[in-house]
Amino acid sequence: MKPTFTPKNEHYAEVVRTSFNAQALMAHIGAQLSRLEPGLVEITMPFRSDLTQQNGFLHAGIVTTLADTACGFAALSLMPEGANVLSVEFKQNLLSPAVGETFVARGQVLRAGRTLTVCQGEVRALQQGEAKLVATMLATIIAR
Amino acid sequence: MKPTFTPKNEHYAEVVRTSFNAQALMAHIGAQLSRLEPGLVEITMPFRSDLTQQNGFLHAGIVTTLADTACGFAALSLMPEGANVLSVEFKQNLLSPAVGETFVARGQVLRAGRTLTVCQGEVRALQQGEAKLVATMLATIIAR
Amino acid sequence: MKPTFTPKNEHYAEVVRTSFNAQALMAHIGAQLSRLEPGLVEITMPFRSDLTQQNGFLHAGIVTTLADTACGFAALSLMPEGANVLSVEFKQNLLSPAVGETFVARGQVLRAGRTLTVCQGEVRALQQGEAKLVATMLATIIAR
Amino acid sequence: MKPTFTPKNEHYAEVVRTSFNAQALMAHIGAQLSRLEPGLVEITMPFRSDLTQQNGFLHAGIVTTLADTACGFAALSLMPEGANVLSVEFKQNLLSPAVGETFVARGQVLRAGRTLTVCQGEVRALQQGEAKLVATMLATIIAR
Repeated sequence: MKPTFTPKNEHYAEVVRTSFNAQALMAHIGAQLSRLEPGLVEITMPFRSDLTQQNGFLHAGIVTTLADTACGFAALSLMPEGANVLSVEFKQNLLSPAVGETFVARGQVLRAGRTLTVCQGEVRALQQGEAKLVATMLATIIAR
Repeated sequence: MKPTFTPKNEHYAEVVRTSFNAQALMAHIGAQLSRLEPGLVEITMPFRSDLTQQNGFLHAGIVTTLADTACGFAALSLMPEGANVLSVEFKQNLLSPAVGETFVARGQVLRAGRTLTVCQGEVRALQQGEAKLVATMLATIIAR
Repeated sequence: MKPTFTPKNEHYAEVVRTSFNAQALMAHIGAQLSRLEPGLVEITMPFRSDLTQQNGFLHAGIVTTLADTACGFAALSLMPEGANVLSVEFKQNLLSPAVGETFVARGQVLRAGRTLTVCQGEVRALQQGEAKLVATMLATIIAR
Repeated sequence: MKPTFTPKNEHYAEVVRTSFNAQALMAHIGAQLSRLEPGLVEITMPFRSDLTQQNGFLHAGIVTTLADTACGFAALSLMPEGANVLSVEFKQNLLSPAVGETFVARGQVLRAGRTLTVCQGEVRALQQGEAKLVATMLATIIAR
């Protein structure tokens, strides 16, 4: 169902990794780039109690941080050399409380335009070997 | 232009402060509740370089965290005793790079229903005494 | 990838058809219910030049009408007897100009809750036997 | 609170009126351009029973059509000569059932960029001299 993409920059993986490592926030919250293909990025983060909201669930803002970052780098993976990405906007639905041992955010490109890229994001919570979809995002990213 | 509201719970301020203090993430990122009225909440956070994206701007995920939290507590301020809030969904437009010394997120209730509350969020960056609007949010919150 | 659902109301198909037929707008724009399964609805509409924007493309508002309606009825198909649906909110990305002979909107339930249902919508334009994705929606529907 | 704007094109009003008149859908649903200032557009439409959903309310898709169109033309009013506008995406919250004699949609520019313009939309229902806010939109428009 999802489109497949040919990267414009043969060094796309290096570009994405370098930019990911330049995001101080990713290290700060313990997030890692766990999958990288043209137009698809996954970011994995173990649960941490210092990133929670009032009920002890992972804060919606952190769930969004993971999804937004995965979408942004999925978009970057298809851009030509020298491109930078900025999030224009996103919409996130929080489907279930973010309870789990580990969280995996996936960003996938739906449409790659010259200026704008539209991505779908999903965040899953893993607990005792089961994955539950906790959030879904629709995001617009601009190349700069 | 904005509606004015009468709180259903006379202890609304205490309820919001207690719930804010129970969000581990707020302490972790150095955010404080800086304004609290029925249907209106502001949260203030100084810039921190460990919360940035690849260009050194405040990460869109943290900008969203502030706006989402302000919206959630604005909603909570109008709810009856014993209510809890969960974000159903939000949409955020990032209007300018989040560059500043301090960030102020404001959440305001647009419509308070029995089950669902709709809020508008805004995040401003303060730099050398000037405030710049960096993000605007539209959020749906559910009472639980 | 998409979840499968068991309808709570064995007469779900009749309920959806009756409600669809009660939407005066559907007849007015020439839209028909073309597929109906538990949690999945498709609506088909031939192009009409009186529903266009300034470039002669199908107006984004009509593309949204089709997607919103497909999402609402996908949600209704999973609800218990006597339920009615109202759209709480939706977000739509317009991916390509809506040019085609026929438009097919699909609404699919992502998560069916007791109060809120979250759906994904997609609109495709068919032209000379080819289908092109022109819009994607994320919608929240409430049972009333 | 809202920013004021200086139009780049002194003939902005003529450009907007010409483009509005070129939207076949506006005539088809009986909508008129009722206010036009730099960065602000209002569109007015009397209720019509052939544009309703299953409860006899104005269909959310038509409410969205009005808000989207008002936002698009508010954006166009600030663009240089020769520009055309396309909606990239929008998010709409439906705050109350769209019941009324007349509907007024207002689009206002929040941020006018070279490529992207972000607008806020609002739709009010007028009934027996009272105006009720029925929907609020956040929209991204691209200049083409």
